[in-house]
Order: sequence, then C-alpha cells, then structure tokens
Amino acid sequence: MADEVILLDFWPSPFGMRVRIALTEKGIKYEYREEDLRNKSPTFLQMNPVHKKIPVLIHNDKPICESLIAVQYIDEIWNKKNPLLPSDPYQRSQARFWADYADKKIYDLGRKIWTSKGEEREGAKKEFIEVLKLFEEQLGDKVYFGGDNLGFVDIALVPFSTWFKALEIFGTLNVESECPKIISWANRCVQKESVSKSLPDQNKVFEFIADVKKKSGVE
Amino acid sequence: MADEVILLDFWPSPFGMRVRIALTEKGIKYEYREEDLRNKSPTFLQMNPVHKKIPVLIHNDKPICESLIAVQYIDEIWNKKNPLLPSDPYQRSQARFWADYADKKIYDLGRKIWTSKGEEREGAKKEFIEVLKLFEEQLGDKVYFGGDNLGFVDIALVPFSTWFKALEIFGTLNVESECPKIISWANRCVQKESVSKSLPDQNKVFEFIADVKKKSGVE
Repeated sequence: MADEVILLDFWPSPFGMRVRIALTEKGIKYEYREEDLRNKSPTFLQMNPVHKKIPVLIHNDKPICESLIAVQYIDEIWNKKNPLLPSDPYQRSQARFWADYADKKIYDLGRKIWTSKGEEREGAKKEFIEVLKLFEEQLGDKVYFGGDNLGFVDIALVPFSTWFKALEIFGTLNVESECPKIISWANRCVQKESVSKSLPDQNKVFEFIADVKKKSGVE
Repeated sequence: MADEVILLDFWPSPFGMRVRIALTEKGIKYEYREEDLRNKSPTFLQMNPVHKKIPVLIHNDKPICESLIAVQYIDEIWNKKNPLLPSDPYQRSQARFWADYADKKIYDLGRKIWTSKGEEREGAKKEFIEVLKLFEEQLGDKVYFGGDNLGFVDIALVPFSTWFKALEIFGTLNVESECPKIISWANRCVQKESVSKSLPDQNKVFEFIADVKKKSGVE
C-alpha cells in the first residue's frame, strides 16, 4: 500500500511551513488541506484533540502533532533521502536545542512586536534581535545550520523569515541591518525548491497580519 | 578513557530529577553538583550561557541543556541498557508528544497554584486536574506509560509528583481523590530504585516551597 500523507495546515503558520519543507526535502507527495481555524473541521478536532492546533501530519490515518515532533518523525520514517538531523548523538542534541530555542523565543517575541506598544514592544524588539544574533553566532561561516545541507535547525527557523517584513513595518525595525547574516542565510535557504515552494510571500503575510490587526482592533 | 559525566542540578527541580532517573536507569555513574541558583558558578554559566538554567548534563566536557533533550541524548548514547524511547517511529513521536505536553503544562500550572489567588488559582487547579486526567487516559491499563518498563513519558512526568503534596496544601486540592490512577502509577514508579534514588521526599519539597513563599511574600 502506498503511503497516504495528509497535512492539516494554515498557510501563514511558520509551524506548518516546517512540515511542508521537511516533506518536500524527502520527496514525499502529500495532500495539503487548508484549515479554517475559526471553524475547525471534525477531522482536525479528532486528529489533534489535545492542542487543537495546526499543523497536523496524518500518515496512514495516524496523526502526528507539534511541528518539531512531526519533522523528526518525517526524518525517521523516510530516513534514506536528505537526513535532517545529524547522525552524531551530540550534534543531534545540539540541533534539538537550537530548534527548541527557536520554538521558545521567536514566535512569542514576534507576536509581542506586532501586538504590543511602548516599553513592552521595545523590549520585545531588543530581545528578538538578541535571539537572532545568537543564531548568527551559531551559524558562523556555515552555509546552513545543518552544514552544507539544510537541516533540522534551518527548517525550524527559516519559516519565521516570512514574518520579518511585517515585523519590520509594524515594529519599526530593520532586521537586515541588525542581522545581515540571518538575512543572507534565509535567502540561501529560499534558493532551495523545498523552501521556496513551502513559504508564502512576505507581502502576503504582511497583508494577513494587517488584516488581523484591523479586525482585532490592535493598533 | 572512561566517560566523565557531571550533572549540574538543584535538588527540588523536576527537570533535574528527569536526568537523574535517566542516568540511573542506564547504570551511569555521575558526579552530582548542586548549584546555588542565586550565585551561579562560572562552570554553570559557561555550560549553559543561553538559558542559564539547570539541569546541565556534562558528558566528557560537552554540555547538553534542556532536560528532555538530555534524556534523549542519554538514551541514544547508552542505547544498550533499558531503552527509554520506543523503537517504533510512530510510538516514539507519541512519547515525545506527551513528554512535551507535560513540559508545556504541568510546571506552569503548578506554579500558578502556589503563587496565585482567587479565580486565577481556581482556573489553574481545574486545568491541572484536567491535564492529569488526560495522562490517566493515556496510561489506560498499562503499568507505565512506557508499557511494562519505565519510559520517556514516565521520566518526564513522575518528578512532578514530588510537588503534589505542596500543591495539595497550598492549593486546597486532593490529587489522589481526583486522579487516583496517576497516584497509583507514581507509587509504582517510586518502587523502582532509579526513581526512588532520584526524587526527594514530598515533605522536603513542601518545606522548600513554604520557605520560598515566605521569603518572596507570596501568601
């Protein structure tokens, strides 16, 4: 039986983008299902009853939730093509550390930048840049965080670059001048088809956030 | 060269306890170093400059931070004795999901129970019990979350049981009557030497929290 792979997703989600990139890196065909998060489908609620969040990867009827767990699953199941995690256990622990760090920091800080004001916003902007600078240090002179090939940390981090333009405009901030190495790295990632096919245009994300801000009354 | 294994830890930390259990399950001798978190040692700050949190596992001079990442590392390095994660990739993804769920929920809810008041405290208590009931469902009729042997989810969750007594007293709540299956499971875990040796007495944790509350002025 051929594998049946379905992805329940929402297009501007950096977490969903991770799973899209990983599946594409592995050359896996999958059915993409856009979820209406204000009117969640019965399949969606059945597949992720705990968090009720996208993305949900469904492999032969079995759900895998939480994006970094799904990316690891994809790497373990389709382990012949394009390994995403390093084979050395210590390097693997470090890749997990930095992917987890992206998870713990970037989304929340980004959200604060476009939803808060005054001191809170300034604090979030400062920390956001500090976090990206730490990633620049980690990257060093490598092409990708994964070395010569796209790896787990690249996949964890690059989706957030699609939100940079919106953060720059709504946060009055210039990511490129502050963290030029991160921007060069993101541009290298986007040259890969697996990434360019999986990430939306930054202008579309900007319009999406502008619309959310308008509807929710966030100035 | 024999492996040099050091654990930078703080005795009431549920996260530190996880690493202690995992090392003991694998039969690894390690040097335990209690950290004074108000006066962090130079080694500690050098080994975990990003989060500056315990536990830090140091294996042959190389640090591994974040407890669930350290437990996975231990399982991968010492892979012959007592496997902690399932060998099947799908089961492994599910073990990671539930360990991550414990991480995302239990500590913060527990903290809210002993630091907040009124509606916030009542909300935290309600959610805390709901989370434990979800774990009870997952456990089903198994001896451990890992099946017949202690596994990744057991190690992620059981340390929090040392905080139950404090939460019961400070939160006016009875975990045993609400979630009897979780208490029975925790008691089974403690019958294992790897667990009993790694967990402090609940009364000692209660006194520790009472002291923190007193010093910080939390009623």
